[in-house]
Amino acid sequence: MHATASDLRPHPRAGLTCESTPSAAWRAPGTFEVLAADPASPARAGRLWTAHGPIDTPCFMPVGTYGAVKGLEPEDLVEVGSQIILGNAYHLAHRPGYERVRALGGLHRMIGWDRPILTDSGGFQVFSLRGLQRLDDGGVDYQTHFDGSRHRMTPRTVLEVEAALGSDICMILDHCPPGDAAPKLKREAVDRSTRWAVAAAELRGAILAPGQLCFGIVQGGTDLTLRREHLRTIAALPFDGIALGGLSVGESIADAHATLAAIAPEMPTERPRYVMGIGTPRDLLAAVRSGVDMFDCVMPTRNARNGQLFTFAGKVNIRQSRHRDDPGPVDPGCACRTCRRYSRAYLRHLHEQNDPLYGRLATRHNLFFFHQWVGAMRHALREGRFSALAAALARLVDVDPPAAAEAG
Amino acid sequence: MHATASDLRPHPRAGLTCESTPSAAWRAPGTFEVLAADPASPARAGRLWTAHGPIDTPCFMPVGTYGAVKGLEPEDLVEVGSQIILGNAYHLAHRPGYERVRALGGLHRMIGWDRPILTDSGGFQVFSLRGLQRLDDGGVDYQTHFDGSRHRMTPRTVLEVEAALGSDICMILDHCPPGDAAPKLKREAVDRSTRWAVAAAELRGAILAPGQLCFGIVQGGTDLTLRREHLRTIAALPFDGIALGGLSVGESIADAHATLAAIAPEMPTERPRYVMGIGTPRDLLAAVRSGVDMFDCVMPTRNARNGQLFTFAGKVNIRQSRHRDDPGPVDPGCACRTCRRYSRAYLRHLHEQNDPLYGRLATRHNLFFFHQWVGAMRHALREGRFSALAAALARLVDVDPPAAAEAG
Repeated sequence: MHATASDLRPHPRAGLTCESTPSAAWRAPGTFEVLAADPASPARAGRLWTAHGPIDTPCFMPVGTYGAVKGLEPEDLVEVGSQIILGNAYHLAHRPGYERVRALGGLHRMIGWDRPILTDSGGFQVFSLRGLQRLDDGGVDYQTHFDGSRHRMTPRTVLEVEAALGSDICMILDHCPPGDAAPKLKREAVDRSTRWAVAAAELRGAILAPGQLCFGIVQGGTDLTLRREHLRTIAALPFDGIALGGLSVGESIADAHATLAAIAPEMPTERPRYVMGIGTPRDLLAAVRSGVDMFDCVMPTRNARNGQLFTFAGKVNIRQSRHRDDPGPVDPGCACRTCRRYSRAYLRHLHEQNDPLYGRLATRHNLFFFHQWVGAMRHALREGRFSALAAALARLVDVDPPAAAEAG
Repeated sequence: MHATASDLRPHPRAGLTCESTPSAAWRAPGTFEVLAADPASPARAGRLWTAHGPIDTPCFMPVGTYGAVKGLEPEDLVEVGSQIILGNAYHLAHRPGYERVRALGGLHRMIGWDRPILTDSGGFQVFSLRGLQRLDDGGVDYQTHFDGSRHRMTPRTVLEVEAALGSDICMILDHCPPGDAAPKLKREAVDRSTRWAVAAAELRGAILAPGQLCFGIVQGGTDLTLRREHLRTIAALPFDGIALGGLSVGESIADAHATLAAIAPEMPTERPRYVMGIGTPRDLLAAVRSGVDMFDCVMPTRNARNGQLFTFAGKVNIRQSRHRDDPGPVDPGCACRTCRRYSRAYLRHLHEQNDPLYGRLATRHNLFFFHQWVGAMRHALREGRFSALAAALARLVDVDPPAAAEAG
């Protein structure tokens, strides 16, 4: 990759913290303010208030399935610019156990993180337990992948777990079929998700604490008719935000982006829009352009551990021997602590030695990059120059070589 | 363990940094000042100056075989009170390669650590390569445990590697036989070590940079006659410090401590005394009482990763299920960041999930403890109250249950 793009980045510190000033009046959890909108696209910048403070959108959310974002401490996350992290209700319900987390003072206290936390239901993971789960209209019976013990997950149990965890944003139980599922199954999944959403909307007042937000989820795969129908249904329910599920589950990138472009702009403007489980820098650009506010993905953290580092000039596979003698940083223009201090040669050495320090340094860099990537779009939106920035970012990712080309 | 011992600790910050004040005049590398001596024992407090600044003794040195102290960044080490760290010339010579380290600006620059570094020759590790090494009077031929490649290690090559690494304190090549070696082999090892020491003393001026210190090593196992003879020989050579090797290599604790008690006080008083590869908190107490200034051991770091955490009230095995619901810190009296922020329950959860964050938090705690343990002695020496403190510390470790009793 020849094009560096230092002019595209916000100031290094710009993505580092929530831009909300200390003097900004505290708003009730659930308040969502649209602060700027792109005149030429559905893209917008906003601010969502939670019981643990605001998040500035568009916002990328790192994944900490079991509580911790693997290898990082809360101050590492603050340093790279994470405003909110994700946990998984299914995983945490069993490890360490949601009653245990409650007894330890909730998830924030247990992990030492005082910013917002969003929890996914973990339904997606339970549906992936091949042969270990049985679905009915009320919920899903499953055996855990931890110890084979039998449990039942319903709209109610998911909210109960999230209440115990103390999540700021609670995702409801939904049914997410694979991307290549038959139309009949997609229809079933939508109908089942609707029943569960109605149940969750009724139950949340009794189960969740007043400050805990609850988001509905729209299914329907890449079938726009089904998506639109389900969106109308979910949007009519009193959720604090609306998510698109069922993307990045096996469909093509083109189909996913087409679905985003068609559906996201039709989502309610006055509530935050969240696309679950995406994605690549290119996916994030497509999502923001379509008017999405929030996203999560394991990509920056998982790929970091596997040796793939993201930069504005393309991906770097630190395992390659050509980095062995390279005294330069992963990205000379990057202001993260990893790039400010360590060479590619040292990172490769740590990776080769399986030193746990490698994972921390690499994860920190990749998260910094993702937060900068999204932060650049957020700032451009606020400053009324989104179109130009998005076009420049698009040129970067269009010529980005696929991961497979450099891996190995 | 019933006895907590908060009165025995120095102030939490006391062990955290080198006590040398910024206004202390910079001294030439190799300068060793004895700042206080216990009137009732050979114990003393001092300060050794290196090209990367002073270290206050007695001083515990964490081990970073391949450069990094596993999982920790330089600021973690500074925070817990590490003044100097160890590297291993054999390991670094092959991974990432000493010429590579030199090209990257030296070991300090590569790892981002600007305090002193001591490097062991790695001879001990090479002698452990069963069937893969052959010893002669000039050095040792070996095949690496990395890739089986053939190399030769001599007094000269060790210094050449250490020159390339830029170590502040360079240990010479010696021959360290197992603790249960026959008397004939111990004799041979002493004679060979002497020849190598003479060679190293002659070569250092031509190979090492002016500011790089070079320490001689005394062998002889637990045979006091042999030890004394070798000590006289090594002490007569122009080394900047003298080390006792060949302890903690299989002999009994009683024999090791008896050897320390007999030999350390006979080591030159005007040069720093270093005991290699020890040890437990009890070993460190015995060493300081015998007048030793420096020690290194993998125990705090390796045991941390295996779940064993040290406290002033005894050891904690974090894997035990009884910690599962414990909201308290590892040690309520400990001021390390791990204890200030995280519960035993969370540490156990991280350990169970194999989260790399566990290793960092646990290693940080154990190093903090070791630095506090030694720092308490250093401060007591300076304040003229070492006897009372040493007696109190001895009561703590004498009733400390052996590790096996709690592990499992």
